Formats: sequence, structure tokens, C-alpha cells
Amino acid sequence: MKTYIGIDLGGTNVRVAKVTEFGEVLSQVKGPSYGMEGPTKVMSNLKEMVREIPGWKDCSAIGVGVPGPVDKKSGSMVLSTNLKGFTGYPFADELSKEFGMPAFVDNDANVAGLAEALVGAGKDKGVVYYVTISTGIGGALIVDGKTVCGRHGFGGEIANIIIDRNRKKINNLNAGAVENEASGTHITRKAKEVIKDKEILHAGSVFDLADAGDERAIKIVDEATRDLGQMFATIACVCDPDIFVIGGGMTKSADKFLPAVIENYKSMSHTALHNTPFVIATLDEPGIIGAAMLPMSEGI
Amino acid sequence: MKTYIGIDLGGTNVRVAKVTEFGEVLSQVKGPSYGMEGPTKVMSNLKEMVREIPGWKDCSAIGVGVPGPVDKKSGSMVLSTNLKGFTGYPFADELSKEFGMPAFVDNDANVAGLAEALVGAGKDKGVVYYVTISTGIGGALIVDGKTVCGRHGFGGEIANIIIDRNRKKINNLNAGAVENEASGTHITRKAKEVIKDKEILHAGSVFDLADAGDERAIKIVDEATRDLGQMFATIACVCDPDIFVIGGGMTKSADKFLPAVIENYKSMSHTALHNTPFVIATLDEPGIIGAAMLPMSEGI
Repeated sequence: MKTYIGIDLGGTNVRVAKVTEFGEVLSQVKGPSYGMEGPTKVMSNLKEMVREIPGWKDCSAIGVGVPGPVDKKSGSMVLSTNLKGFTGYPFADELSKEFGMPAFVDNDANVAGLAEALVGAGKDKGVVYYVTISTGIGGALIVDGKTVCGRHGFGGEIANIIIDRNRKKINNLNAGAVENEASGTHITRKAKEVIKDKEILHAGSVFDLADAGDERAIKIVDEATRDLGQMFATIACVCDPDIFVIGGGMTKSADKFLPAVIENYKSMSHTALHNTPFVIATLDEPGIIGAAMLPMSEGI
Repeated sequence: MKTYIGIDLGGTNVRVAKVTEFGEVLSQVKGPSYGMEGPTKVMSNLKEMVREIPGWKDCSAIGVGVPGPVDKKSGSMVLSTNLKGFTGYPFADELSKEFGMPAFVDNDANVAGLAEALVGAGKDKGVVYYVTISTGIGGALIVDGKTVCGRHGFGGEIANIIIDRNRKKINNLNAGAVENEASGTHITRKAKEVIKDKEILHAGSVFDLADAGDERAIKIVDEATRDLGQMFATIACVCDPDIFVIGGGMTKSADKFLPAVIENYKSMSHTALHNTPFVIATLDEPGIIGAAMLPMSEGI
């Protein structure tokens, strides 16, 4: 049985694991990533952690998930904001040289989607679209077990899809970008703007208020579920996935919003497309599993 | 050198050709398709035409492009409006049995896109998004030389992408669907609604009037190019293609609208995505070449 080293590298924490070709985690090490201290510190820390994994030398290859778009061909990040100094850093080459095995890099949403496509909710499906809805909105397109990163590593970067370009521009994303309209952060923001007499901690509070009949919350949830429905309908026009797999923090409240999202999706899609399944992600640790399975998806 | 039989089957006409693995058309037969007379007539006509091709027996396989979404696995059409009685008809099986070689079916936009990806403007690119703008708007996603048809054969059916869901619903497409806002037909329709003192024959007339300074035409062209720019920006969020290849009748007027479309695309995209090339399709007969190359893209 083949095994791989998976590295889930975030701005704050990093996890390194030995994972089987079936997605089983055999051993794992966690720690701080030192993401703001630059490549020298980040990489020496990371290399030590790999060496702490029992039997790392028996692994066939290394896969890394990083927080930002990646140029898969060169194995480097196109844009790095949470890992200082990593834009263009030759990640894959450096790890490959150090450990004497092939190394691959992809972004965190892509590797999470890859894990779901290979051993999770999207197993055995040809075209999987993974969508993560939490503080932000991200995604990944996986075709025949390989992530489609595209020219700039932006494949799946659906946050910027315009729902309505006449809405207010509030940051560097497009005016009316779906992330600014329907992510957890922005559902919370919208609620705080109009609901001053209740405590709004997160999107869950808004869903609860809507459930309790608060008209202001109902209006916000209605709009967000229409916006998300439109986003899914748009993705279906572009690549007609066999399945939508949905991950991210907001899935904790899935029963409160997903049925309405699906209804809205249907109202904006050809009848033929209505039976596309919307399934909640099933893996506890898609990031580390997907990172480890990256080399396998490249034929290693 | 391998050769293939390509069949470009439309509602009115059909073309059958022998094509090399490099996309060179060796011989070709054209004729009416009898699309409204049902499968028996259409298929017997088509089979005769294949037998008119010199050396058809030396071909490795058959590929067919049809006007509508296809279930590639079963080799049949999911929905057929221009070919009466063909919904669910076992196209690939029937041809394969008749001629003793493998047969594959895909929709016409997909095979045109495939031809452009393999031997046309998108040659050697990993992720090609082909967009055809004429009376309607269609497209195709080609990843590593294979069309991504998706669950229902609707991959690339971008006509229904919503630009602004607050616009008027005018047919079975979504309110604000890009085809209803920016295709040749609808640019013409919009112009006819407000410009009564000039002759509007087609979208080209509207572009000419805008060029001549007609404010009403300028407004229509501005809106259409913003809508098309938004559509391309949306596709880039979903799959970040290496290249956009643009075909269809409206490319005859490309100099009159494409620069504005690209500017609008950039204004609605992350800076990293600005250098994605927009290239006009280069093949004269992508339909027949792409049909013939379909088996090759499946490894035959």
C-alpha cells in the first residue's frame, strides 16, 4: 500500500501527516506555522515536523496545501498574504530536494475538494464542484480526480462571482461579489447593520432569529439563499458538475439555509439540472488528506 | 496515421468527413439531414453518406456532433429540439454496430471547442474555454484535451448564466440570462425596440450605428459588452481557463466589441487574471473536425 506525506500549511498552524492511498491518516504532527516569519523559519520548522513522522522515508511523495492560489506547474504560490514572503517561493522544488521524493503544491480549498472527490462525499464522481462557505466563500473544480487550477491557480476562486453588479462595492472584491453578499462574515455584517436590539455573534445567530420569525433576519437570509442559489446555478452552467460538495463552517447550520439555496438553484436552472446532488462534505480533515493525495492525483 | 469519421449533424444539414489525427479533412460529403423526419430517415441517410467516403473502413472510429446536450456515457442526446425523436436515441451504439468501430457523440459547441483546443487557437493549452456568440451564446470547457460535459451534458451551456436577475424575463431562459442580453439576436432585438428610424438587420448594424455616434446604439453596445465581460469574468472564477477561444457569427464584428468586452472583463477580475488571452477561433470547420477528433480525445 502506498503512503504519502501530506502538509496542511496555514498562516497560523501547520499539520503534517502520513496518509495512505485510501485517505487513512496513519500519524500526524501539529504545531505553529510561523507564517509571518518568512520562508527560512517556516521551511526549517516544516522539515523538522516531516522528520518526526514515523517511517516518512517510506512515503512515495509529498503534497502540500497552502492558503492562496498556486501555479501547479512551478509548484509555487502565485499570491501569498497569510504566509509572508512565499509569493513565487519554489515550494515543491525545495521539499523535493530536501526529502528526495516528488513534491506537489495546491491551494487549501483545492486539496480539500480533492479529498472529498477521491475519498469523501464526491467519491467516484467524474466532475465534482467543492464549495466552502464560512467566513469567506471558496471552491474547487475536480475533474476525473484532478484539480483544475487553471492558468493562474484561480480555478475555484468563486468568491468574486458577481451576483448583482449594482450592489455596493465594499472591498477589493467586485461590487456584488457573492462572498460579500452571502458568506458567514457578510450575513453577520448585514444583520448587524439593521438589527441593533439583538446580539449577532455569527451567521448562526441570524439563522436563529429568522427561525424565530424576526422579519429583518428573514429578509437577510432570503437574500443570501437566493444569492447562493444563483452562484450554484452559474457554476452548473459553466461545468455541470456531477455533484456539489459543500464544506466550511456554515454547514453547521446547513438545515437552516441549504434547502432554500437548493430551491433557488432550481428556480434559476434548466429542469434537466434539478437533480444535481448537494451533499455536505464528509471528511473531518479534508485539508491534510487532500494534500497527501495530491501526488496520487498526479499519477505518483 | 490514424483517421476518423466525423459527422456534423444539424437540424437542416449534415456533413460527413474523413479527418486525420492532425485535424486535416481528407474528404467530405454534405447534404440535408432530414432532421424533422425522425431517426429512421436521419440514420439511413447518414449511413449512406458514411459509405460514400472513400476508405471509410480504414478509419479508427466515428465521432458525431449534435445540436443539443448529450449524455456522453450512453452516447445519446439528453434533449433534442432540432432533431425530432432523438431524445434518448442510442446514437453511438447504432453507429458502432453498423460500422463495426467505436462511436462517440457530443454536442456541437463541445466538438467545435474540442477542435479549437486540439488543433486550433487553443492548441497545447491545458484548460480551454470556448465561447460561441452568434444568434445564441454557447460554450465548451475542455480540460487536457477532453470536453467536460458534466452530469447532464450541460457543461458549457453558458447561455443561462444570470447577469442581473432583476431584468425582464422574456423566454424560458433565466431573467437576465446572458444570451437574452448580449447575443446577436438580442442586441438586434434591443436596438429594434428603441431605434425606429434606421434599418437594423443584425448585430452588425447596431455596431455600425454605434461607430457612427448614434447614442441609442452606443448605450446598447456598452451594456452588451459589460454583460459579456461579466460572463467571461464569471467563467474565470469557476475554472480560470488558460485561454478563451471565441467563435460564432458575431466574431465577424470582433473589432467592434471584443476590446470593450476584454476591458470590462478586467474591471471585474482580480489583477492576476488580466492576462488571460481572448483569441478568435481559427478553424473554418471546427464542427466536423471536432466531431472526428472526439474518439481520439477518448483515447481511441
